[in-house]
Amino acid sequence: MTDKLKETAAFLREHDCFDILTHDYPDGDTLGSGFALCLALQQMGKKARVITTFLPKDFVFLTNEIREQDFETQTVVTVDVADVRLLGKNRAAYEGRIDLCIDHHMTNVVDAPLRLVDGHAAANCAILYKLFCEMGITWTRAIANCLYTGISTDTGCFRYTNTTAETLRIGADIIDIGCDTAYINKVMFETKTKKKLALEREVYDTIEYCFDDRCAIIAVTCDMQRSIGVSDGELEGLASIPRQIEGVEIGITLREKAPGEFKVSVRTNGQVSASALCATLGGGGHSAAAGCTVKGTLDEAKAQLKAAAAKFL
Amino acid sequence: MTDKLKETAAFLREHDCFDILTHDYPDGDTLGSGFALCLALQQMGKKARVITTFLPKDFVFLTNEIREQDFETQTVVTVDVADVRLLGKNRAAYEGRIDLCIDHHMTNVVDAPLRLVDGHAAANCAILYKLFCEMGITWTRAIANCLYTGISTDTGCFRYTNTTAETLRIGADIIDIGCDTAYINKVMFETKTKKKLALEREVYDTIEYCFDDRCAIIAVTCDMQRSIGVSDGELEGLASIPRQIEGVEIGITLREKAPGEFKVSVRTNGQVSASALCATLGGGGHSAAAGCTVKGTLDEAKAQLKAAAAKFL
Repeated sequence: MTDKLKETAAFLREHDCFDILTHDYPDGDTLGSGFALCLALQQMGKKARVITTFLPKDFVFLTNEIREQDFETQTVVTVDVADVRLLGKNRAAYEGRIDLCIDHHMTNVVDAPLRLVDGHAAANCAILYKLFCEMGITWTRAIANCLYTGISTDTGCFRYTNTTAETLRIGADIIDIGCDTAYINKVMFETKTKKKLALEREVYDTIEYCFDDRCAIIAVTCDMQRSIGVSDGELEGLASIPRQIEGVEIGITLREKAPGEFKVSVRTNGQVSASALCATLGGGGHSAAAGCTVKGTLDEAKAQLKAAAAKFL
Repeated sequence: MTDKLKETAAFLREHDCFDILTHDYPDGDTLGSGFALCLALQQMGKKARVITTFLPKDFVFLTNEIREQDFETQTVVTVDVADVRLLGKNRAAYEGRIDLCIDHHMTNVVDAPLRLVDGHAAANCAILYKLFCEMGITWTRAIANCLYTGISTDTGCFRYTNTTAETLRIGADIIDIGCDTAYINKVMFETKTKKKLALEREVYDTIEYCFDDRCAIIAVTCDMQRSIGVSDGELEGLASIPRQIEGVEIGITLREKAPGEFKVSVRTNGQVSASALCATLGGGGHSAAAGCTVKGTLDEAKAQLKAAAAKFL
């Protein structure tokens, strides 16, 4: 890893005019990585910009000290992008042109001559922290804010099982540099829109327990979403509701994408493999979090999930 | 602080037969402190036990390696207790007999010949970590689990504003010793009882916005609590619901204690002082979290709170 960090630092010193690409439906880690790298490069007198498909309003503060620059692209870097298919609408323009890939997904398949990939890092921003130490950048509050945003959002503020002792030590170093943890934690973890709250209330009404309460199912229909007026972005986090109920081993969230079609999120505690369960319905994922798509009415969709869950309980 | 740590370490070496007292309505930090200290003392060949008013079931795992010992009390230690009044039913038996007080509350007024008090520590367990380093104890997974429980619960898993770089570094050291963060985080932060969830759903129905949505009010009545069958312990955390709504500056939670009497929690974001607001109704507290008691029907109680809030918006 140290050699790769040195090689990457040298590459950044030797190149200029960077387009930094985030993944589609950008989250805190890809945006924090992008803007932190952009700030570091601009500080070195380089030209750089972040190319993203969308910038959610909660993350606009990350751009506070970014200078807009006009230039012809010479170097292309991806951050937190596991696969070029995740570039969304930017894929066509950049596929085959990626010079450097910085990522923390075990499953990374991005094709690039230089790859700084560490599947053990809790967040891509944790890799960037080490890279910046290697580069000897001048630390600023703005860069620290970007890195803290990425690390905290990808670890649920040091709560998820990907958090290691090293993650906490990097967090400590970033706080020492000076970053606004109070603001970032408030916005990322302690704020809900009125509409999100109204939706949660509706979703609570749909909770159905089965198999002696070892399985809990919730549903979000197009009607609910439309009547409350919540955007797709505000649906994030709902899938954690059924799993967090005491005694529940399989938490299932059905989300109506179109009439007669449901996107399903399965979250499990302990023994049951979410990916094995979803595989029986043509889906896949990780052992504790997986997904699939099922067709039919809400009742038919639920029946399919219950039949699948029965095999694992 | 280093001198106090040395003095406390010497005191513990020179004494025996310890009663370790927690505060009433015990939380993760007082229990984690108590059982960690008990384990460290037993490891040194001392006799020790934890005296608490109640042991909530989520914290029973902290006692896994505690040995029950029969002895006559020689030494009394309080942990995370800011005031003898907080000893609850144990106050009468121990007041005036406290030999050592270990605490992290700025407001600590416990009278004891030896006081290890650091108001800047995020958790009392962070002070114990330093004390154990000074004492040179043999680190065990059980002791690390106790300390992690205290630090994580008192900081919302490193999310609250009391979290410092030092808190994260101590957390990292404790993870390196070996502790079950996955289990502890799941139980402390990612689990709700069915009844708690049912109550939250009811509480969502009571949300009332006022002053252009800058104030939100929720209410829990005795009837709601009785019909769902939730215990007082399961009401914790409800007060954070109204404050977390986007745009809300004053979040008010009314909880009916007895017919015609409401315990009020006020949580504020930003400018408004919760303690100043509650002081107008005979209460008090901190700048972002305070409380008071109001009398009357639910509507009358709400009217009093709205009138008080109006002065601050």
